[in-house]
Amino acid sequence: MTLTQAKEYLLTLEKAVVALNHAMSILSLDGETAAPSQSWRGRGETMAYLAEREYHLLADERVREAIACVLQHRSECDEVMVRRAEEFGERIEESLLTPPEELAENERLLNEASAVWHEAKVNDDYASFAPYLDRLMEMRRRFARRKDAGKPPYDVLLDRYEKGLTAARLDPFFDLLRSGLTPVIQAVAERPAPRTDFLHRHYPIELQRRFSDRVMALMGLPRDRCAIAETEHPFTDSNSKWDVRISTHYYESDVASSLYSVVHEGGHALYELGTGDELQFTILGGGSSMSIHESQSRFYENLIGRSAPFCRVLFPILREIFPGQTADVTAEEFYRAVNMAQPSLIRTEADELTYPLHILVRYELEKQMMAGDVTAADLPALWKELYGRYLGVTVPDDRQGVLQDSHWAGGAFGYFPSYALGSAYGVQMLEAMQRDIPVWDEVAAGNLAPVTAWLGERIHRYGMLKKPSELLVSAGVDPFDPQKYVDYLRRKFTELYNL
Amino acid sequence: MTLTQAKEYLLTLEKAVVALNHAMSILSLDGETAAPSQSWRGRGETMAYLAEREYHLLADERVREAIACVLQHRSECDEVMVRRAEEFGERIEESLLTPPEELAENERLLNEASAVWHEAKVNDDYASFAPYLDRLMEMRRRFARRKDAGKPPYDVLLDRYEKGLTAARLDPFFDLLRSGLTPVIQAVAERPAPRTDFLHRHYPIELQRRFSDRVMALMGLPRDRCAIAETEHPFTDSNSKWDVRISTHYYESDVASSLYSVVHEGGHALYELGTGDELQFTILGGGSSMSIHESQSRFYENLIGRSAPFCRVLFPILREIFPGQTADVTAEEFYRAVNMAQPSLIRTEADELTYPLHILVRYELEKQMMAGDVTAADLPALWKELYGRYLGVTVPDDRQGVLQDSHWAGGAFGYFPSYALGSAYGVQMLEAMQRDIPVWDEVAAGNLAPVTAWLGERIHRYGMLKKPSELLVSAGVDPFDPQKYVDYLRRKFTELYNL
Repeated sequence: MTLTQAKEYLLTLEKAVVALNHAMSILSLDGETAAPSQSWRGRGETMAYLAEREYHLLADERVREAIACVLQHRSECDEVMVRRAEEFGERIEESLLTPPEELAENERLLNEASAVWHEAKVNDDYASFAPYLDRLMEMRRRFARRKDAGKPPYDVLLDRYEKGLTAARLDPFFDLLRSGLTPVIQAVAERPAPRTDFLHRHYPIELQRRFSDRVMALMGLPRDRCAIAETEHPFTDSNSKWDVRISTHYYESDVASSLYSVVHEGGHALYELGTGDELQFTILGGGSSMSIHESQSRFYENLIGRSAPFCRVLFPILREIFPGQTADVTAEEFYRAVNMAQPSLIRTEADELTYPLHILVRYELEKQMMAGDVTAADLPALWKELYGRYLGVTVPDDRQGVLQDSHWAGGAFGYFPSYALGSAYGVQMLEAMQRDIPVWDEVAAGNLAPVTAWLGERIHRYGMLKKPSELLVSAGVDPFDPQKYVDYLRRKFTELYNL
Repeated sequence: MTLTQAKEYLLTLEKAVVALNHAMSILSLDGETAAPSQSWRGRGETMAYLAEREYHLLADERVREAIACVLQHRSECDEVMVRRAEEFGERIEESLLTPPEELAENERLLNEASAVWHEAKVNDDYASFAPYLDRLMEMRRRFARRKDAGKPPYDVLLDRYEKGLTAARLDPFFDLLRSGLTPVIQAVAERPAPRTDFLHRHYPIELQRRFSDRVMALMGLPRDRCAIAETEHPFTDSNSKWDVRISTHYYESDVASSLYSVVHEGGHALYELGTGDELQFTILGGGSSMSIHESQSRFYENLIGRSAPFCRVLFPILREIFPGQTADVTAEEFYRAVNMAQPSLIRTEADELTYPLHILVRYELEKQMMAGDVTAADLPALWKELYGRYLGVTVPDDRQGVLQDSHWAGGAFGYFPSYALGSAYGVQMLEAMQRDIPVWDEVAAGNLAPVTAWLGERIHRYGMLKKPSELLVSAGVDPFDPQKYVDYLRRKFTELYNL
């Protein structure tokens, strides 16, 4: 195989793989948003067929040959071509671990598990979901053993979301968060709580939709390339910079819930919208790692979205759309309300300060789950125990406990730490950004464009071209230091609560 | 190949074909409803890949062998298996006419043409769409020549939507409609028009969405199997009886537009929802023919939906949701308003009486287009001429003229006659139904279940199992007699307008 043939082969293969992934992404997106609930009955077989098809494409002997050829001639290829070949190498290594019939069976399981989880959550019926969760855990443990039987399965899974991540690296990180934040949380608990009554007045969904439109406009999300949908558990999906989707969930008695979902998912969307043109329709879209992706969403949600300058920009829009609900409220009260820190039950609704402890609960459980130390039957009790231990709250039911997130139902074990890591990365990105541009002046003027441009230049445009560590270095971000994340939170909440 | 092997082979093939069609259907549905407008850039390649894949599956020599084997042993197979084999035979005959690279190119063209048409319609810019329309026409003519060079291309295309349909059969049908209806239309024009002012008051979209929910409930459309979306040009799509989608377009100053879109598409949806269990996830879903499908949508839209008893059931719901807009209106006025007959510009908004002439315009144009007698450049003027000749209206722009429908942009030449034929079938179905059940008593009581059950038993459950003519005979419908359609319209409008 000549280099020209190898390149051509990989490009043709990539077109097919991208097409299959595109179809699977839209089927899944549609299933989570627009499709009627019973439609799951047909989706599993289709996903299974498409997954098997991808397997067969990647299993072709010529793929390895083409990859080897490009990597042998790497000096004659551009950077993008080399990264493509490397990424294909990793994909085939992973994909071929599982026999195609089993891959198809996994897709059927994932499809059914997701439908069962939705029902189980609505009905607070963990028992119906438990057998699926056991099967999902075994599916991922089996994958991990096949990939590297010498490593703890959880480390193998963590590595999929952030190259090189291990429990050995995460343990001290979470220890630091816990020991650093717990005293702050305790101190906050002794101070009077800000008023939050007005966040829970009646906010009609029709008007919340308009509010989302305004927030998306403020964030600079172009609607001809980025749509918003409604779903049980908000997420972002992307097929190219011309086709990004965010989603949210509206609650009539909680205006902040959807607001910060939109801002969070909007952060993910800006990443995808800013990915370089040369990476479109390649396998190099989708961000450097899930932690880097979450660094962008958490950056917008919290560092920007829950900052005082942004709240002062946001509040007049809120008041314009909901004059009655906000008539007796000031911008300052709004800022304090969306930053009220209090141990609570639901991760996605949690304040910035207690949030990392929600992740810690999941992290500790996942370690045990992937080690095979616990089964699905043990989880509700363990969940309650850890929420009691770390957050001091009593979990009244599984709907507000172990059933709350969609991740495990989607087979994503090892994803949760990305939220905490990403939050920590974000704080260090903000530090670097502040050296370059007057961040808070721009935000106070309602002008997020320079912020997004800074991230676009240094993070977004590279897609998967750079690994997280390279990317952070080249962006001018200081070496990873999670103490800065703790310091930021301590500072912010000390000021908010006059500690 | 043994019969067992042949059956197994066809079932495996069917799973793959159904999966590919499912993926294409959802990609297209998403594109027409939820996707951001720029997303078309990625969709063409994915559709092309999936279409090529289907080609390769059908091109396998073993498919023909398996079909032949099943048909040789037809006495040993059940009816569904035999119909499957026949249907696969027809599919491969059609699919293999076009080389796979050209099939893929066609998908790219269709994808791009649809995006360009959307823009062109919004901007009243026919010139931008015209080159695509020429290519689409040539694409279908080429297909028709390949399929049967001995027949006029238009007949080949008509046959795809209704087996055996030809222009020779349609010419006298449309002549009858024109000569029968024109005097009625002229007589109506001399009578005072009913008031319709209240239909064009301000109807907020948020409330129209609630109205749609109520109308869907009234029609018995189960929301866990049938969802509603919003789009430029309403349509229905289905993947199984568990996954049916209707769509509508809301206009704030026209409450009847979306109402009758929902009822029309709801009629299509009931067909799909009622298809037999044994046909799910086979290639035998999707209805007997497009005329039979349109018979169901037009049945609900007009025969039921615009009947006096149904309007009397509908009106209190309308009033409940829009009390201000309907305060000075009676149910009788509502009935007369939604039946106001007047030559107009837009087919989908046309009244029942003038509607067939809108179809006639398209039929005459399609005949010329497929004969190669006209190019895209000629169409706007011809459109205006025919609307002047048949409907006596002046077409002010292309947006309200040749650009109004999505069918040609989707490559569907020969589909339009289905609407008129379906309407005629519907009148004869109603006649048969009235012999069996007290239709109007049930409708007056707001109980559509017996109507849907009658159609379900005799039409819906058979999917593609029966050809239209067989289906109509077995349903107890009298031999086709379009005079009955004319008589029905004459009777209805004579009464409405005191002719």
